[in-house]
Amino acid sequence: MIKILLDAFGGDNAPKAVIDGAVAALKKDKDLKLILTGKKEVIEKELANYEYDRERIEIIDLPDVIAMDDIATEAVKRRQSSLMGAYWKLKTEDDVDAFVTAGSTGATIAGGQLILGRIRGVKRAALCPAIPNVRGGVTLLCDCGANAECKPVMLCQFALLASAYAKVGFGISNPRVGLLNNGTEEHKGDALRLETFKYLSKMKGINFVGNVEGRDIMLGDCDVVVADGFSGNVALKSMEGCGKLALGLLKEEIKGSKRAKIGYVFMKKALKNLYKRIDFDRYGGALLLGLKKVVIKSHGSSKAVAIANSIEQAAAICRGGLVSRVEKSLAEENWEEIIDGDGQ
Amino acid sequence: MIKILLDAFGGDNAPKAVIDGAVAALKKDKDLKLILTGKKEVIEKELANYEYDRERIEIIDLPDVIAMDDIATEAVKRRQSSLMGAYWKLKTEDDVDAFVTAGSTGATIAGGQLILGRIRGVKRAALCPAIPNVRGGVTLLCDCGANAECKPVMLCQFALLASAYAKVGFGISNPRVGLLNNGTEEHKGDALRLETFKYLSKMKGINFVGNVEGRDIMLGDCDVVVADGFSGNVALKSMEGCGKLALGLLKEEIKGSKRAKIGYVFMKKALKNLYKRIDFDRYGGALLLGLKKVVIKSHGSSKAVAIANSIEQAAAICRGGLVSRVEKSLAEENWEEIIDGDGQ
Repeated sequence: MIKILLDAFGGDNAPKAVIDGAVAALKKDKDLKLILTGKKEVIEKELANYEYDRERIEIIDLPDVIAMDDIATEAVKRRQSSLMGAYWKLKTEDDVDAFVTAGSTGATIAGGQLILGRIRGVKRAALCPAIPNVRGGVTLLCDCGANAECKPVMLCQFALLASAYAKVGFGISNPRVGLLNNGTEEHKGDALRLETFKYLSKMKGINFVGNVEGRDIMLGDCDVVVADGFSGNVALKSMEGCGKLALGLLKEEIKGSKRAKIGYVFMKKALKNLYKRIDFDRYGGALLLGLKKVVIKSHGSSKAVAIANSIEQAAAICRGGLVSRVEKSLAEENWEEIIDGDGQ
Repeated sequence: MIKILLDAFGGDNAPKAVIDGAVAALKKDKDLKLILTGKKEVIEKELANYEYDRERIEIIDLPDVIAMDDIATEAVKRRQSSLMGAYWKLKTEDDVDAFVTAGSTGATIAGGQLILGRIRGVKRAALCPAIPNVRGGVTLLCDCGANAECKPVMLCQFALLASAYAKVGFGISNPRVGLLNNGTEEHKGDALRLETFKYLSKMKGINFVGNVEGRDIMLGDCDVVVADGFSGNVALKSMEGCGKLALGLLKEEIKGSKRAKIGYVFMKKALKNLYKRIDFDRYGGALLLGLKKVVIKSHGSSKAVAIANSIEQAAAICRGGLVSRVEKSLAEENWEEIIDGDGQ
C-alpha cells in the first residue's frame, strides 16, 4: 500500500479540484491511501459529495493556508499550514511515501529543502517537469526553477537525478542526457556550460549526448535536458506561452469563420488528440528531485485531472524506488575524479 | 534611394531563394537598390530567369562562401567571401545603408563587431528578432544569442537599443520594456537580474514595466523583452520548437483520420491564417542592434519570402533613422548616475 499526502488547499482551484482528483485517483489505484491536509471541516463537507472508500482517506486538520505570493522562507515556519504541516508528517512518519501539492512553488521548494531535507550527497533539490515531445514520449527538464544560480557540480547531479527519474518514472532504460545551451557545438555557451560539458563527458552513470538547444526539448532526440534553474524556467515558460498562443489563435480562427466552424465539427477529435498531445499536465506535475521522499509540485492552475495524474505519478515513482536508485547512482560516481575545485 | 547589400550566398537555400527574394523586394519598393555579393557568374545566370529593373541591381564578385559551421573569428579574415566582402563595402561606402544575410549567425556577429564596428558608446551588439505576439503585433527579444555572458550595463543598453528599434521599425510610440526573469516579483532572479532591475528602474529613456517570464514574450503586455544572449536564445528556440511541434502534430492528426481530412477542406483558410500568425519569419530577420549601420540576419533556412521581408524591414529601419536615434538615446541617458562600478 502506497501512502500519499495531498495538500487539499494548494492551487487556484483548491479544495474542490484537489478533492475531485483525489477521489478519482483512489478509484483508479486500489493500492493507494491518501492523507488530505487542510481545513478538516471544509474537506469533509466537500467529500460528502462523493462516493469513495472511507478506509483509504485520512484527513489532518491544518487550517492555515499559504498564499501563492507569500514569501517562501517565512512560509516554512507555518507548521499549521496544509503545505508545511504535510511536510512535517512526511518527514516524521516512515510509512508515508510521498507528497503532492499544487501550492506555491517557492514554498514547496523551501519546505522540501528545509523541513524534509535532501538525500545525502545531493547539493540542491531541482524541479523537474516531464514535457511532451514529438516522439510521443516525454523529455525531462531539470532544473526548471529551484536554483536560479548553479555551479557545474549541481548540473552534473541534475543529470544523474533526472536519469534515475527517467528510468523509474518512464521506463527509459538508457536515458540520453543533453546540456541546454545556445548552440549544439562543443565550444558553445558561457563558462558554466563549458565547464559542465567537460564534467558530464566524464561521468559514467549517465548517457551524455552533448549540447542541445531550446527546440530540442520538444523536438530532439534526448530524454533528459540539464539546465540551470534560470534558463530552464525560461525554456519551460516560453514553450507554455507558445503552446497556449497557438491553441488560442486556432480557437480564434475557428470562431471567426463559418467555413472553419463546419470544419471543426469534422476535426473535433483530431484537435482533441492534439490538445492532449501537447498538454503539459498530462504527465502530472514537476518532481522535486533530490529530496528524501517523493514530492510532486502540480501546476498552480491544476484541475482534477492534473491532480489525479500527479498522484498516479507519485505512486509510480515510489513503487519504482526512485530514492534508493538515486542514492546508488550518487555513490557509484567518482566525483573527485570528475570535478575539480572550481566546479564544486 | 535606399541601397542595401545582400549576401547572395548566405543560407541553406542560397543563391536561388535569395535572388528570388531580391527580385520580389525590388518590385515592391521602387525606391530601393540592391547590391548582391557572391559568385558573379552564378548570380547572373540565376538572375536571367527573372524580369527586373537592371538599373537597381548591382553585383560584386566575391567568390568565397563562409559555411554555417566555419569558426567565426577565422571567417572574419576572408575578405573575398560574400559575407565579409559585403561588410567591407558597408563600412567603406557612405551611400550604402544596410546589409541583409541569411549566412552563419556567428560570422555575421563577428563581422559586424570587427569590420563594421559599433555605434560610439555601445558596449556590445545584440541580436534582436521580432516575435509575433497574441496582440497581433511583435515583441522584440534582445539579446537572443550574440552575448552568452552579459553585465548589467549591457542589458540596460539592450533595453535602450531595442526601444529605439520598436519606435522606428514598428511605430510603437512608448515601448514597454520587460526584463526576462524566472518570475515576475521584484526579488526574483540571479545577481545579474537583481542588479539590472535596479538600473532599469532608474533609466529615463525607457518605459520599464518590471520582470516578465518566458510566456510573456508571446502573451504578455510588453513590446521589448531584455535578456542575456544565453537565456534569450533558449527562449527563442524553445518557442520555435513548440510552435513547430504544435503545427507538425496538427498535420499528423489531420493525415491520420478521414473525418479530419474532410474538416481540413473547410478549415484550410483558418489554418493558413494561423500559420501566418505564428510565423517567426513574417517580420523579417533578427536585427543586429548597436552597429554603425543596419544589419539584418535572416534565418538560415530563409525562403524567398523571408529574404524579401528582411530587405523590406531593413529599408524601413534605414528610413526611420534608427542609428541616429540610438545615438541620441545613448547620449541623453546619465549612465554614471544609473550604474555603479560593479554593473559596468
